[in-house]
Amino acid sequence: MNATDSTNSPSSSSSSSSPSLSLPPVTVLGLGRMGSALAATLLAAGHPTTVWNRTPGKADALAARGARAAADPGAAVAASPLVVACVLDHDALRSALAPHTAALDGVTLVNLTSGSPEQAEETAEWAAAHGARYLDGAIMTTPEGVGDAAMMFLYSGDAAAFDEHRATLAALGDPVHLGSAPGLASLYDAALLGLMWSVFAGWLHGTALVGAEKVDAAAYTPVALRWLSGAVSTFVTRYAAQVDAGAYPGDDATVDVQIATVDHLLHAAGRRGVDTALPALLKDVMVRARDAGHGDDSFASVIEVLR
Amino acid sequence: MNATDSTNSPSSSSSSSSPSLSLPPVTVLGLGRMGSALAATLLAAGHPTTVWNRTPGKADALAARGARAAADPGAAVAASPLVVACVLDHDALRSALAPHTAALDGVTLVNLTSGSPEQAEETAEWAAAHGARYLDGAIMTTPEGVGDAAMMFLYSGDAAAFDEHRATLAALGDPVHLGSAPGLASLYDAALLGLMWSVFAGWLHGTALVGAEKVDAAAYTPVALRWLSGAVSTFVTRYAAQVDAGAYPGDDATVDVQIATVDHLLHAAGRRGVDTALPALLKDVMVRARDAGHGDDSFASVIEVLR
Repeated sequence: MNATDSTNSPSSSSSSSSPSLSLPPVTVLGLGRMGSALAATLLAAGHPTTVWNRTPGKADALAARGARAAADPGAAVAASPLVVACVLDHDALRSALAPHTAALDGVTLVNLTSGSPEQAEETAEWAAAHGARYLDGAIMTTPEGVGDAAMMFLYSGDAAAFDEHRATLAALGDPVHLGSAPGLASLYDAALLGLMWSVFAGWLHGTALVGAEKVDAAAYTPVALRWLSGAVSTFVTRYAAQVDAGAYPGDDATVDVQIATVDHLLHAAGRRGVDTALPALLKDVMVRARDAGHGDDSFASVIEVLR
Repeated sequence: MNATDSTNSPSSSSSSSSPSLSLPPVTVLGLGRMGSALAATLLAAGHPTTVWNRTPGKADALAARGARAAADPGAAVAASPLVVACVLDHDALRSALAPHTAALDGVTLVNLTSGSPEQAEETAEWAAAHGARYLDGAIMTTPEGVGDAAMMFLYSGDAAAFDEHRATLAALGDPVHLGSAPGLASLYDAALLGLMWSVFAGWLHGTALVGAEKVDAAAYTPVALRWLSGAVSTFVTRYAAQVDAGAYPGDDATVDVQIATVDHLLHAAGRRGVDTALPALLKDVMVRARDAGHGDDSFASVIEVLR
């Protein structure tokens, strides 16, 4: 560790305390913004941390804070029983490690690189062929959120490897293991990002609508978030049970009733010059559900026309 | 009150306690499922409650629990200084009251009937012309949620009338006054329903996606709700300030980066036979934002292409 740096950097202060010596070593492959945040967080938590990046300059700041910069991916992997990778894509990871696969034997490879479920399955097979245990993962936060225990890190793959390294992974964020199929973390990631964009789009559309009547986003948004965390979340939980049961009792809020109501939204948006593509799509899925015989069912029945 | 009923119905028990005599009387016009829930809740809270419905049979159950069934809308309005209406639409309300407008003088009319902001403005003018103070409202729950203090009832219009009757309205749910323009409650209602449907659609799409890999909705949904209430809500709050500032710094999550990521979702959905209309629309708004020069900005910049 660089002494000048440690005096001014609270995030690296814990790496100078004695308990750090007993924490297991970790290797981080890839030092983009996210990989650097992962390595910095592990370092700050007191883990002996080895780093490697394709272009070496990226390791300098971390080395100044106590990280060991490995000369090549093989040396990096050999330095720790737990190897966390966050590189451009799955191909980049396998290409980098191709000349050094002997080092993989016995390590746990945690791949936080973005990719598809199919790529996760392929890399899991490749890792297994070289004697590594494999976890695929998805980071459900931005680099600045790394290290916050409220943020989810999703993992899938080898459950025993997850259990063994859980405490170390918890330094990065709350580790959530989804199952042994390696593709699950990536699939959840896609699903959750789709949900996030849907929320963003729906919230921005409403913000534009009330904004047309001079209501600030700062006034509308707390009401919208309360609505989300209250009534909407209650509905979602109820509908989840309906989806698993394959039965969608409409009770107070049938698809037919909501089709009638969505016209108010289309009208209000159109009249104010606000885009109608989103409410039109929402109406369309409801109409398709109704046409499939779900007019008296709840909105949860829309899943029947989505899959 | 019907004594036989009161022994078995916890929800009406408070109407037999002595403080009920001091609570202000309320009139409820319209006894559909929602109107009946409103009247039953006011009765249970101890308010002397007068009810009227176009077809008289609907009042019987409430009358058996102590409500007074008025013979006509004029008598109903004359019975209470606070009149809560929940009928088919604005026209139905004004038609029912047309022969009895003299009774409106001095009352506060709280119109919880669904309608557009423009209809709210019209009915507000009509009420003012007959000497009534007017609040328009939107009930952000189902009939079964009426009486739950966690549920929002949105109001807009006469602020003094709202303050005066706030305590009574609080029996129905948490009363939120949005401003003096009568159309605001209806506009918020449309915006919030659009957000709700966006969440439903995004959540169901993700549920279908993970469901294709045999993940139950009951397994996916808690992760989705945690994601919503955590990271997604944090982003929304940050983006609200960006919208009001008219500047959308992209930081860690630019529109360009998200356009690249949405292709993973489109691919994952297409490969599993899950509908791609929703992710395609989400990508489209991002592409439109990028084409408008917001590639390096955050998702909040999408509002520029929605309005």
